[in-house]
Amino acid sequence: MSSPLRLGIAGLGTVGIGVVKIVQKHADLLAGRSGRGVAITAVSARDRRKNRDADLSAYRWEDDPLAIATADDVDVFVELIGGDTGIARDSIEAALRSGKDVVTANKALLALHGQELAALAESLGRVIRFEAAVAGGIPVIKAMTESLAGNEITRVMGVMNGTCNYILTRMQSAGLPYETVFEEARQLGYLEADPTLDVGGIDASHKLAILSSIAFGTQVDFDAVEIEGIERVSIDDIRRAADMGYKIKLLGVAQMTARGLEQRMSPCLVPADSPLGQLMGGTNMIVVEGDSVGQIVLRGAGAGEGPTASAVMSDIVEVARGVRLPTFGRPAAQLQTAQPARTAVPAAYYVRLELQDKPGALAKVATVLGDAGISIDRMRQYGHTEGASVPVLIVTDKTTPEAIDYAIEALPKTGVLVGEPVELRIEEV
Amino acid sequence: MSSPLRLGIAGLGTVGIGVVKIVQKHADLLAGRSGRGVAITAVSARDRRKNRDADLSAYRWEDDPLAIATADDVDVFVELIGGDTGIARDSIEAALRSGKDVVTANKALLALHGQELAALAESLGRVIRFEAAVAGGIPVIKAMTESLAGNEITRVMGVMNGTCNYILTRMQSAGLPYETVFEEARQLGYLEADPTLDVGGIDASHKLAILSSIAFGTQVDFDAVEIEGIERVSIDDIRRAADMGYKIKLLGVAQMTARGLEQRMSPCLVPADSPLGQLMGGTNMIVVEGDSVGQIVLRGAGAGEGPTASAVMSDIVEVARGVRLPTFGRPAAQLQTAQPARTAVPAAYYVRLELQDKPGALAKVATVLGDAGISIDRMRQYGHTEGASVPVLIVTDKTTPEAIDYAIEALPKTGVLVGEPVELRIEEV
Repeated sequence: MSSPLRLGIAGLGTVGIGVVKIVQKHADLLAGRSGRGVAITAVSARDRRKNRDADLSAYRWEDDPLAIATADDVDVFVELIGGDTGIARDSIEAALRSGKDVVTANKALLALHGQELAALAESLGRVIRFEAAVAGGIPVIKAMTESLAGNEITRVMGVMNGTCNYILTRMQSAGLPYETVFEEARQLGYLEADPTLDVGGIDASHKLAILSSIAFGTQVDFDAVEIEGIERVSIDDIRRAADMGYKIKLLGVAQMTARGLEQRMSPCLVPADSPLGQLMGGTNMIVVEGDSVGQIVLRGAGAGEGPTASAVMSDIVEVARGVRLPTFGRPAAQLQTAQPARTAVPAAYYVRLELQDKPGALAKVATVLGDAGISIDRMRQYGHTEGASVPVLIVTDKTTPEAIDYAIEALPKTGVLVGEPVELRIEEV
Repeated sequence: MSSPLRLGIAGLGTVGIGVVKIVQKHADLLAGRSGRGVAITAVSARDRRKNRDADLSAYRWEDDPLAIATADDVDVFVELIGGDTGIARDSIEAALRSGKDVVTANKALLALHGQELAALAESLGRVIRFEAAVAGGIPVIKAMTESLAGNEITRVMGVMNGTCNYILTRMQSAGLPYETVFEEARQLGYLEADPTLDVGGIDASHKLAILSSIAFGTQVDFDAVEIEGIERVSIDDIRRAADMGYKIKLLGVAQMTARGLEQRMSPCLVPADSPLGQLMGGTNMIVVEGDSVGQIVLRGAGAGEGPTASAVMSDIVEVARGVRLPTFGRPAAQLQTAQPARTAVPAAYYVRLELQDKPGALAKVATVLGDAGISIDRMRQYGHTEGASVPVLIVTDKTTPEAIDYAIEALPKTGVLVGEPVELRIEEV
């Protein structure tokens, strides 16, 4: 048996401590599975005196992550600091240049600078692994990079931010408005320091951009993701969608079309009885479609100490086993520049309107939709609410985003609406 | 780039032809992902003249799989013949001894002789890969061997035979009896030549035994699986279970307990709204639970040309990439002898009785259950059916299999039953 693989861990938050615990608890298991031991040499974090839920006394402490990244007694630099610039990036680059492999959970860094990092690693003969960067404990990076290697991937999608899914399912189950549940989530510690990363769809879009790169062999292109967060999802829409047999999810979808690569992250309707529709709370789900395999669904905890540390450990064990693959599953130089395309794949849409209660109002709406070339699949008019307006729900037949945009712009001009119309895409799953 | 990895394919049924098609269609993709090309050198099947859905003219034909297994121009022997003895085993052993790696979809062979084959491969420095042997296109072998390497696996379970799940869901949706749907499945070509392999639970148990080995680091032990097929599942039970909020699935469960390794394959009740309960038709689902990752659910097509060939290709690409892991995730010599234990983990049970319609009948049943130490969670008595008997459904609190066995044996002795009582385990998922 070879000598143990020596880890230097930078960042001792939830995930870092989770990794320490697994290494301590499962020494024999890891040795058996990796063919050699796994040992922690050095650790680093911002504040040494912080009370942490693990005994770190056996490891050298470094205040500076760069000292770990360049240490002679470290084989793998485990970057769990986070952030897309600054010390996280600097220390990863230093580690690669010092001949170390890198394991990271840093989705923002990979989404924004993955291509340069991959090229650097490969030029130096090192590997970067990042299973924990997407969907916590769900082995989606490995599944796409390795298990589906014989497939042309046609679409990848999923629920990739547990906090947003928690908020949406909690709104539905408790009948509470967005603002109330957002505040609950904040107090439970579910939100990032900058909550826009979660509820604005940024964090999930980082993950989607990474998955796109692996799926389609393109350079990671976060800037091209069409992003909409969950802030405008109302309890009304959640209730009305449920009436029509749907759930609202913050859904990421990436698909290659003849016009280019579509990447979008937005609140969508999915059938309530589909696997995505049934996903409750903080759980994540990734759906991958390939030309041979058909549809594969992967489901599990998308965050948290244990699941995320589990993903980090799987990467560490792969390095210990001597597995060496290019960062995004293909050599960086072979990754194509993505041709971003705005969403053009047709879909059915959910449209919610408040109509003035006067004769001919519905006819005017129908005329606008007809002019836009949009057929109506189902329509429901509800009884009066408090005011003099009546809620109307429409599920369209499949139509283009352009047609919907045209209709949504034209509808208020009919003069029969109260407030703005709401439209949500219904994604086929 | 290295020279292409040369494949010799033995067995040109659905899966073999699926592999040929992927190699032909995705030459560039495979080269990009594997870092080298993948080329087919030679093929073999029983009947050369059979009309096949692929152009095989570019490959050398061998009537004898052993000629492929020992050919100088083959790097990987792809065994898709099937069967747990005879030429499949002989040719795999010959290939290993000839310095070839092996990729196979042969679950029966691995379940019955996996330990010897793993030891042989490792003694010769060769690898055997078998992603396609379990759950078709679902990457469960890789997930358990690699992605969950940092976890102590606590339980693995799932629906692993698509034909049985098709039969059970079709019985429910069409309200048809077992015999009718079985005949439908036969005519649709869903059943093995020996249908007992499917409906008797043998095929699924082969898969469960393989998963157990990887999960718990034990030598594969098919003989210790407690197997019950779906033959005795009646449309009555499917309907009554649905009434109580359950679906009936042929569920495989393996879990390590203080008493030893429990492996069982049997028709079970699962909550209708759980991921397993919602699984329709031929789809497979595997649920893996680990101490860090929590619960991971993998879902996809469990059979068919594309999905199974996709799994075979993932193994081939891994070999092409130079990945070399022990067969069951740990060196064969380190796998422990499993200590088989009969199922003792407590569970709730579903019990269906036909009671004679006379005073005191239910009291006698309740007394037997009480004597067995079994509490009743829910009970329903239905109106008279055709005869003079009344159906009674009982969902027990959690109890031991021993207590249930005692009760099921004692109940007919009360003299108030019509026919035999039916009991099904309710598995927590």
